[in-house]
Amino acid sequence: MFFNRKELQFEAKPDKPDPIFAKQLQEVIGGQFGEMSVAMQYLFQGWNTRGNEKYKDLLMDTGTEELGHIEMLATMVAQLLEGAPVYEQEKAASDPVIGAIMGGMNPHHAIVSGLGATPENSAGVPWSGGYIIASGNLLADFRANVTAESQGRLQVARLYSMTDDKGVKDLLSFLLARDTMHQNQWIAAIRDLEEKEGSVIVPSTVPPEWEATEYSHTLYNFSEGEDSAQLPWMSGNAPDGHPFKYGQPEAFGQKPVLKPGPLESHDTLPEDKLKG
Amino acid sequence: MFFNRKELQFEAKPDKPDPIFAKQLQEVIGGQFGEMSVAMQYLFQGWNTRGNEKYKDLLMDTGTEELGHIEMLATMVAQLLEGAPVYEQEKAASDPVIGAIMGGMNPHHAIVSGLGATPENSAGVPWSGGYIIASGNLLADFRANVTAESQGRLQVARLYSMTDDKGVKDLLSFLLARDTMHQNQWIAAIRDLEEKEGSVIVPSTVPPEWEATEYSHTLYNFSEGEDSAQLPWMSGNAPDGHPFKYGQPEAFGQKPVLKPGPLESHDTLPEDKLKG
Amino acid sequence: MFFNRKELQFEAKPDKPDPIFAKQLQEVIGGQFGEMSVAMQYLFQGWNTRGNEKYKDLLMDTGTEELGHIEMLATMVAQLLEGAPVYEQEKAASDPVIGAIMGGMNPHHAIVSGLGATPENSAGVPWSGGYIIASGNLLADFRANVTAESQGRLQVARLYSMTDDKGVKDLLSFLLARDTMHQNQWIAAIRDLEEKEGSVIVPSTVPPEWEATEYSHTLYNFSEGEDSAQLPWMSGNAPDGHPFKYGQPEAFGQKPVLKPGPLESHDTLPEDKLKG
Amino acid sequence: MFFNRKELQFEAKPDKPDPIFAKQLQEVIGGQFGEMSVAMQYLFQGWNTRGNEKYKDLLMDTGTEELGHIEMLATMVAQLLEGAPVYEQEKAASDPVIGAIMGGMNPHHAIVSGLGATPENSAGVPWSGGYIIASGNLLADFRANVTAESQGRLQVARLYSMTDDKGVKDLLSFLLARDTMHQNQWIAAIRDLEEKEGSVIVPSTVPPEWEATEYSHTLYNFSEGEDSAQLPWMSGNAPDGHPFKYGQPEAFGQKPVLKPGPLESHDTLPEDKLKG
Amino acid sequence: MFFNRKELQFEAKPDKPDPIFAKQLQEVIGGQFGEMSVAMQYLFQGWNTRGNEKYKDLLMDTGTEELGHIEMLATMVAQLLEGAPVYEQEKAASDPVIGAIMGGMNPHHAIVSGLGATPENSAGVPWSGGYIIASGNLLADFRANVTAESQGRLQVARLYSMTDDKGVKDLLSFLLARDTMHQNQWIAAIRDLEEKEGSVIVPSTVPPEWEATEYSHTLYNFSEGEDSAQLPWMSGNAPDGHPFKYGQPEAFGQKPVLKPGPLESHDTLPEDKLKG
Amino acid sequence: MFFNRKELQFEAKPDKPDPIFAKQLQEVIGGQFGEMSVAMQYLFQGWNTRGNEKYKDLLMDTGTEELGHIEMLATMVAQLLEGAPVYEQEKAASDPVIGAIMGGMNPHHAIVSGLGATPENSAGVPWSGGYIIASGNLLADFRANVTAESQGRLQVARLYSMTDDKGVKDLLSFLLARDTMHQNQWIAAIRDLEEKEGSVIVPSTVPPEWEATEYSHTLYNFSEGEDSAQLPWMSGNAPDGHPFKYGQPEAFGQKPVLKPGPLESHDTLPEDKLKG
Repeated sequence: MFFNRKELQFEAKPDKPDPIFAKQLQEVIGGQFGEMSVAMQYLFQGWNTRGNEKYKDLLMDTGTEELGHIEMLATMVAQLLEGAPVYEQEKAASDPVIGAIMGGMNPHHAIVSGLGATPENSAGVPWSGGYIIASGNLLADFRANVTAESQGRLQVARLYSMTDDKGVKDLLSFLLARDTMHQNQWIAAIRDLEEKEGSVIVPSTVPPEWEATEYSHTLYNFSEGEDSAQLPWMSGNAPDGHPFKYGQPEAFGQKPVLKPGPLESHDTLPEDKLKG
Repeated sequence: MFFNRKELQFEAKPDKPDPIFAKQLQEVIGGQFGEMSVAMQYLFQGWNTRGNEKYKDLLMDTGTEELGHIEMLATMVAQLLEGAPVYEQEKAASDPVIGAIMGGMNPHHAIVSGLGATPENSAGVPWSGGYIIASGNLLADFRANVTAESQGRLQVARLYSMTDDKGVKDLLSFLLARDTMHQNQWIAAIRDLEEKEGSVIVPSTVPPEWEATEYSHTLYNFSEGEDSAQLPWMSGNAPDGHPFKYGQPEAFGQKPVLKPGPLESHDTLPEDKLKG
Repeated sequence: MFFNRKELQFEAKPDKPDPIFAKQLQEVIGGQFGEMSVAMQYLFQGWNTRGNEKYKDLLMDTGTEELGHIEMLATMVAQLLEGAPVYEQEKAASDPVIGAIMGGMNPHHAIVSGLGATPENSAGVPWSGGYIIASGNLLADFRANVTAESQGRLQVARLYSMTDDKGVKDLLSFLLARDTMHQNQWIAAIRDLEEKEGSVIVPSTVPPEWEATEYSHTLYNFSEGEDSAQLPWMSGNAPDGHPFKYGQPEAFGQKPVLKPGPLESHDTLPEDKLKG
Repeated sequence: MFFNRKELQFEAKPDKPDPIFAKQLQEVIGGQFGEMSVAMQYLFQGWNTRGNEKYKDLLMDTGTEELGHIEMLATMVAQLLEGAPVYEQEKAASDPVIGAIMGGMNPHHAIVSGLGATPENSAGVPWSGGYIIASGNLLADFRANVTAESQGRLQVARLYSMTDDKGVKDLLSFLLARDTMHQNQWIAAIRDLEEKEGSVIVPSTVPPEWEATEYSHTLYNFSEGEDSAQLPWMSGNAPDGHPFKYGQPEAFGQKPVLKPGPLESHDTLPEDKLKG
Repeated sequence: MFFNRKELQFEAKPDKPDPIFAKQLQEVIGGQFGEMSVAMQYLFQGWNTRGNEKYKDLLMDTGTEELGHIEMLATMVAQLLEGAPVYEQEKAASDPVIGAIMGGMNPHHAIVSGLGATPENSAGVPWSGGYIIASGNLLADFRANVTAESQGRLQVARLYSMTDDKGVKDLLSFLLARDTMHQNQWIAAIRDLEEKEGSVIVPSTVPPEWEATEYSHTLYNFSEGEDSAQLPWMSGNAPDGHPFKYGQPEAFGQKPVLKPGPLESHDTLPEDKLKG
Repeated sequence: MFFNRKELQFEAKPDKPDPIFAKQLQEVIGGQFGEMSVAMQYLFQGWNTRGNEKYKDLLMDTGTEELGHIEMLATMVAQLLEGAPVYEQEKAASDPVIGAIMGGMNPHHAIVSGLGATPENSAGVPWSGGYIIASGNLLADFRANVTAESQGRLQVARLYSMTDDKGVKDLLSFLLARDTMHQNQWIAAIRDLEEKEGSVIVPSTVPPEWEATEYSHTLYNFSEGEDSAQLPWMSGNAPDGHPFKYGQPEAFGQKPVLKPGPLESHDTLPEDKLKG
């Protein structure tokens, strides 16, 4: 069960309206790595956790915190839209700044949500459940989590340079900090699990006889030039302890030739069966 | 520029048709972590790389290899559909096995592609450009890459248990091996970049004064119970060198109250302005 | 069967081109509550109606009218794009107004449709069949219809303030009126069905023994503060005739603990089964 | 800010595994009217509320409760998948029941989530932010809310007939009850707002001179036959107090003829400009 | 304006219910080349037509007919679902045929639409406005139309073999015939326009000096082997009158090296700028 | 298997940065007819080809070339974003040109990709596997291919007028030329297959007794006016050799009346069964 407290986790007050920045800020609400994604990702991972109660608790702690981040950002967007010349068509004709605002903002903020945040990214594309990752394998999923926090913090850092509003920057500062914590915690958890599982390769439960291990440590040179062979770590051992190899691609497979489809598929018949 | 060689990278020949497994196998072609995703992800990362030519080469090597993996799997799906009782309606009435096949397969394999693979996942949802990640920050992106290879290898391992076709299992063995290599290489590259950047936190280019660092190392207990505080690593230093803290959530922000929208937004008026 | 008459239901002639407003106007063509949605929604509801021929006729009347509304708006968008400086790159360099138009319009109007309307919303996101609602239960669906007409009329009202083009405003006036009619008719139909079914709760066909009725009239206070308890109607009877109650949330359920997955799921093993 | 309590709001324990029903149950998690939709819809409406604090509180109460409903259903799905013959390929060959299960379940439960719930509907389509409605106009939005609860309760009632698992039916009983409460509360709130705004037509803030009121009360007979004219309420007053009218469609508009596009659009030239 | 006549264009009566075939048949309602696509495609093309009234009329004729095809197919799907054992859970336990039906049908037909058609394809994916094509260039669009009718007729032919229901087959016979007519008409229109425009290359309005014509007639051998050079027409003239050439790919471009991003992009710095 | 050569197929160097044009150019990377679509479309068609090795080779040649076109355009977009005032918020306040750029560019180029191309169209909508066409019937698919090259070349021609950057125009010239070649080759291949199959109607494998041929050559006048009957080719033979006919629509089908749903569907009961 969830409960809500009315205060925000952190102050969310812009100094002044800015409808174009409101559009940009939507990326960290409803984008691929926005707060909707991390909230739902951690909660689904938590709900699906089997037999690792401490990690389930960590996931519920963090997922629940992220719900509150959506709240802060949605509140910020609503305030960035207050008092902006969104509907001032008559002034737009004579004032190019107002005209540029009407062309540059997300039309949904004016027409659809009536000056409120939307579950969309900065281009106006709706958030998708297809963004989130919850596989039941914690090591695999924590790698997704550190990815999400890395991409998310990167986006916050970019947004920080795209506004000079002190109130907005304060909130972004707080988000930078929380993303630092979350990167730290998922990296620590990954190290813990890699050690406990005795392997860095996910999933660690694949029996060796399932795998064609002769292909497990070779980098194939599929693009012209051998720059990648010069990477310093290529001459040492791979993280799983076996030496890396470098090789030219070979074809280990057949030249594929498919059988004709049945007549009922109405595929093109083979050349020698065509009438002409 | 790209070139194509007719032979497959590895044998892709099933022992017998199996249209239901053809549907399952689509996950690793057109799913969130299928070969279309990793191919396009590595290539876009490569094309967007700025000033790190060895890593660009590594990305082009691996992305180009993955194009060949789509090829193998598409060929496998087409063969799994050959000779299957896809259109045998009359038998379906009397033979429950044929009936179950017609209900359990992806209808697109019969109706849309005419016994060929489709750019879809195992539920028939089309592949989306929204799956891929290419941010310009290599450390952030390589974390996405190790995530993709971890989720991908996990899915291949699950598929391995869902078929007893020797030919299919051989191809899955090869994919397990290549995913092992790719996990190895992205982990090695991550370690290399973390060392070179002198930081595990992405992006490492954020000046400290941008960040509200007092919130950067605390796990807030947003869910009932303190199991997460017992995680052994919580009592030590975070990966970035500062000690982890554990805390009860506080509200650092305001209770948000939004100003009324302008009349032109046709939002509901505040309670005291309503006529009633 | 459908027939088309060449004349539009209402005049659709803008006074002058305005490519940025053409983009905004797309919301009521291909947005969640645009004319494509209501047309398809009413027609699918009509085609699926079982045993209520008068309501089927009402649905076909209204859905067919909405097809003509798409027609008017598509014609309006095409005219808003006529003669606009869409391709005048050379002037754009020196004329900031032209530059702002090229940045603020929907690029699809220039590149994809060649100065015509598209089946997209105001942010350029394609219309989706996922918007429409047709459940076979007329009372449930008529509530969806009055929702769609309410959101739709709201959006038209907002668009009215975003243009000062007399011709466009005339068409929007007509749409405001038709949305008034359609709200009126669906509200009247809802009242009719609620009375005939003898219940305001959808679906009315659920036997009482299926429902845990002790939870059917309580508002649980899941967010801090008891403002919601002060709503005047909370102290009276609910629309279905039973008194409302106000309560603090309790946990009636278990603390969930899932069993480990089978080995073949390659989920993370429970903590005590991990090697480390 | 949000907090999570470990216990579920209501018991969620199936009597036995049933992977095909796990797939069906996804509809009320990640479908158009699933719990993800209502949770996010009420929270976004709450965050965007301007000047109606009691209704904001009601929205936060209900939206927060719905987060806990996702939790119950996700837990139920995970348990429905436990112990099911998901990976038993060898038995599938000889046992048609196992074969039918492998064909009829959502492949994502086996391959992607490792026996856990996913943010998808019953057909495996990811949840979309495009489903939710939050316009800033409370009356418009509460109509959307009663729609969502009506469609949602209808779907729960249908699912109730599709399983004979006592544990699942218990949870569905609870959901039927909560959906009854939520229909009740939104209907009561709608009546309250309609009275306060002095109008049943949304938005009530449109000045009469904006609207072509001569078209506001006529049902046009766009489909053959006049069954709809026989609806009893058609002969009375509309809910906004004016009499309904019934009429044959007229064309009030022009036959549209568009001007040729500029040469740079490379549209087809008008017939008399083509070379041939 | 559109009008609806109650009779269907053609009989749509199945001999018996078949919920699995109802799912398959959805492909030609809401799939990429279903009737929703062609209806909307022809109508948008018609509404956007500039200066070619006869073709506008042809588009309106055909698009309007296709609206009636959605109607026939939606009616057919609703009847295929009547009386089917969709909710007979108790029998499903003991009767494997009923079990297979519940696993093999589209769950939306049971849970969402209540035994009615949905605006989805055969895999349950909603129809998308992204499928349709309307560019303003009639020759380009008529090529899309003949494509749609070709893919559509192909799908109808495949569905014909997947059912032995006489009533369904009758409707499919009619659709085969109408798709023949529509292929005929678009091919005839293409020939007419190619002749009038004096060119088979779209758009014909590109001045020769815009095009690097030295690359306009060469097939580059980007895949191993020269089978494609043996195609008989490769040794003759191209349809635009110039001879085809066959060549080995050359790189006419640079090896791309991108400049570093600005610090504010927080991209990875070039190798020599990294600290390590 | 695929291989990559570092040089681009053609020079891709803009004269100067232009972030708004970078957004427009995304259409031909990740739009419905962008290079991602044609590359994947030709490759899937090639992989699914059954028994026509020369055409398989042609598909692999062309699909592989298109991979290199994505590469050129992605490189061009990255360069158009270099040095642009993307993050210069402070200047934006005082310089309306910079303000218009920040409002008019794709926010993803600043926030998500860090000055790199994305797999999206010009409105920021992600590329979808739903765009591509690969049916197993070569004649049907080659019609899709000539459609894609026609729409694609049309879009390139429009983009040519929307920039005055010499470097960009050079690349667009090359693309115009390659699209000319590809239109030529698919038209030639269509003519070849039509002749070999002995029919212009796809699929040619439908037995005449499946088709209700009396409806195969009539244009029905579903829209007011008979302009379409005046098309010169309407008075001659259709491309398949039979004469075209022109007719008024008739209803050959029933007025559909559906049976009531079962109680478990909780559909609205027929009027005479309702309580009221």
